[in-house]
Amino acid sequence: AQENAEELRGLIESDAVNDAAVVLDRMPEEERSAAVGELPTEAAADLIEHLLEQQAAEILEQLTPDVAASILEELTSDVRADLIAGLDAQSAFDILQAMSPVEAEETKELCRYEPDSAGGLMVTELLAFESTSTVQAVFDDLAEHSEEYRDIDVQYSFVVDGKRLVGVLPMRDLFLAKRSTPLFELMIKDPISVTDRTQLSALEDVFDNHSFLGIPVVNESQELLGVVQRSSLEHAIAAHDRSDYLKSQGIIGGEEIRSLPVFERARRRLSWLSVNILLNILAASVIAMYQDTLSSVIALAVFLPIISDMSGCSGNQAVAVSMRELSLGLIRPAELMRVWGKEISVGAINGMCLGMLVGAAAFFWKADVMLGIVVGGALCLNTMVAVSIGGMVPLLMKRFHFDPAIASGPILTTVTDMCGFFLVLSMASVLLV
Amino acid sequence: AQENAEELRGLIESDAVNDAAVVLDRMPEEERSAAVGELPTEAAADLIEHLLEQQAAEILEQLTPDVAASILEELTSDVRADLIAGLDAQSAFDILQAMSPVEAEETKELCRYEPDSAGGLMVTELLAFESTSTVQAVFDDLAEHSEEYRDIDVQYSFVVDGKRLVGVLPMRDLFLAKRSTPLFELMIKDPISVTDRTQLSALEDVFDNHSFLGIPVVNESQELLGVVQRSSLEHAIAAHDRSDYLKSQGIIGGEEIRSLPVFERARRRLSWLSVNILLNILAASVIAMYQDTLSSVIALAVFLPIISDMSGCSGNQAVAVSMRELSLGLIRPAELMRVWGKEISVGAINGMCLGMLVGAAAFFWKADVMLGIVVGGALCLNTMVAVSIGGMVPLLMKRFHFDPAIASGPILTTVTDMCGFFLVLSMASVLLV
Repeated sequence: AQENAEELRGLIESDAVNDAAVVLDRMPEEERSAAVGELPTEAAADLIEHLLEQQAAEILEQLTPDVAASILEELTSDVRADLIAGLDAQSAFDILQAMSPVEAEETKELCRYEPDSAGGLMVTELLAFESTSTVQAVFDDLAEHSEEYRDIDVQYSFVVDGKRLVGVLPMRDLFLAKRSTPLFELMIKDPISVTDRTQLSALEDVFDNHSFLGIPVVNESQELLGVVQRSSLEHAIAAHDRSDYLKSQGIIGGEEIRSLPVFERARRRLSWLSVNILLNILAASVIAMYQDTLSSVIALAVFLPIISDMSGCSGNQAVAVSMRELSLGLIRPAELMRVWGKEISVGAINGMCLGMLVGAAAFFWKADVMLGIVVGGALCLNTMVAVSIGGMVPLLMKRFHFDPAIASGPILTTVTDMCGFFLVLSMASVLLV
Repeated sequence: AQENAEELRGLIESDAVNDAAVVLDRMPEEERSAAVGELPTEAAADLIEHLLEQQAAEILEQLTPDVAASILEELTSDVRADLIAGLDAQSAFDILQAMSPVEAEETKELCRYEPDSAGGLMVTELLAFESTSTVQAVFDDLAEHSEEYRDIDVQYSFVVDGKRLVGVLPMRDLFLAKRSTPLFELMIKDPISVTDRTQLSALEDVFDNHSFLGIPVVNESQELLGVVQRSSLEHAIAAHDRSDYLKSQGIIGGEEIRSLPVFERARRRLSWLSVNILLNILAASVIAMYQDTLSSVIALAVFLPIISDMSGCSGNQAVAVSMRELSLGLIRPAELMRVWGKEISVGAINGMCLGMLVGAAAFFWKADVMLGIVVGGALCLNTMVAVSIGGMVPLLMKRFHFDPAIASGPILTTVTDMCGFFLVLSMASVLLV
């Protein structure tokens, strides 16, 4: 552990914290927490902040509560709360006990917020002064606490009456003011604020509409609780998009990195795969119903996987566009008909192109016009089905509060597989047998 | 246009710029630029900034160069440069001609940078003072230009000798200093900076290692060029992740929204689909080689699409994890064996589970033990193949400078389809026929 810690410390102190995170990630699991425990508190905090949440949680749980608490106390309030929220209940309790009562209380408060609400994204480190204070008093306070305020964003300070937010004060205005002026004469009154329950998308709108670097967060009594910084918001949006990508590829239940235990990784991936295989078997049952058709036109078996794959491709494109339009706010979940109208035209064009391609391949292979028509026609029709379903499913999922990133893919492929198999085999049973 | 403009203006002035963007998006294409042209310049700039780049470009191209230039002059330097870079060459030339020579020159400079380099991400709006200036001179300058500096981040100002960056000055330190002090006595010397060529991932490291809100950008002669803000970086990373998601779903060549013309959307999607269908036909040719096997065991046709789909699912999970580990810097493109070792163990576990499930389904359906063994065994083996390929392909793509987000999916599904079809059909030809 000593040796490991020395290596980590060297990297962290030469500003290569990400490299330190990689080194830690490569250590055997059981050595990680010991190495972190040997680090100076500040370096340990720096490193913990750069790990994936799950890995950070595992390490914190294995440290003694005292060490874990002192590491957490080095972090900003929002990061600290996120980490505590990710621990098992017993560890969280023990570590909070070991923290200073004030910080423990504040952390517990922050843990109660949803991660994607203003309360979950805000930091409580900010500058606030009484509206009756003078410019001179602010200068004195800044001078006195300059070390403590080092990491605080001081572009703006907030002006309060007791706890109630009454104004915002751009710090630059202090330069120009007489030192005896009270803050209520300088401040911008009725500042824009959000409540602790404001959701990510609404926050995005507020930041889109204003060039502020931070927005104050208040409760229903207009009491100042914290500040959401623009970079925290951008960070949360990025995390959201990333998680949507992972979910759409079947990585659900949290981010996976390959240093997690094998069985944990296998179990998580399998939870997704097992749902999919059942849906796949369901879809393939359509083929089973047409065994006679298949045995008389065995060439069809070659085209079934093509139709399944290509419909999936076309449908996934439509899913992706719907996911983006939803998150850009360009479409509301109720606007199914608009999406359908826009998709079906693209689906008709692309379906015809793909159908002709695959139909031609079938025709040239077997010198059978009808085979070409059946296969090409089925792919053409099914492409239109696929883009319609792909475009609309994310809206429906959103409307009924399922997670569209997880559910859209499997629903799409199951329905389009069934429909595609049915189209090609039923057309074949009429036209080819 | 008048009426449209009124509606847009109302929304923009009541801080609902995103709603205005939706309204514009829903207008017939030919009305959009006229409506924007009728807006007050500042409102038009606000709106343009909230559109997707392609839509903004179309509108700017249709406005007169004078109007377009005055709108662009309202925007920050980085946004302006990105928009100009997205225009067709003639429009860009005309609009630059209509801008003030200084701003046109600056914009041209910025356009030369890659979008994901520090030069492409920086803004040139910043505060810089000569190192020999006094605190009083800074106060006077701030007072004089307070309107102009309104949107500038004034947390820090930069200290220069001529153009050369020599220090950074936290503005709060000015409060505490005597007014006659020259800046070189107050400034933090040898500040951390990046060059204009610094890439996104390196910038990410710098911001990860320091809590700065902005980092100065210099050229090779250490001359101050601009500043990259933390929120710009977070924004660029989010855009990157988003584009990876879209590409992995087959939306390539730029973001698609449904108000783009139908043929444009169809053409872009088709460029992806047509590559995929050729790969699909290639993969299905393996089935064609085993027609005799298939016609004697027609039940196999039911399982071919299942094996194809499920291998795709398993492989895509591995692709997603590799993509994330690459972007987190947890893995280098050369570490193929590490990835393979970590994937094959998960693949063996999940392959066995999936194989048993599908094998059991086959056995119960046809009461044929050998069919179950062939189908289940093939899926089990092919799952291991799929996770190996899925895990390694993104690393290979990255290493040979292909875009892993675009190329990984099609390569994965083609290889695993071919391999899966071969496994199940060759095993069947030995054990079942």
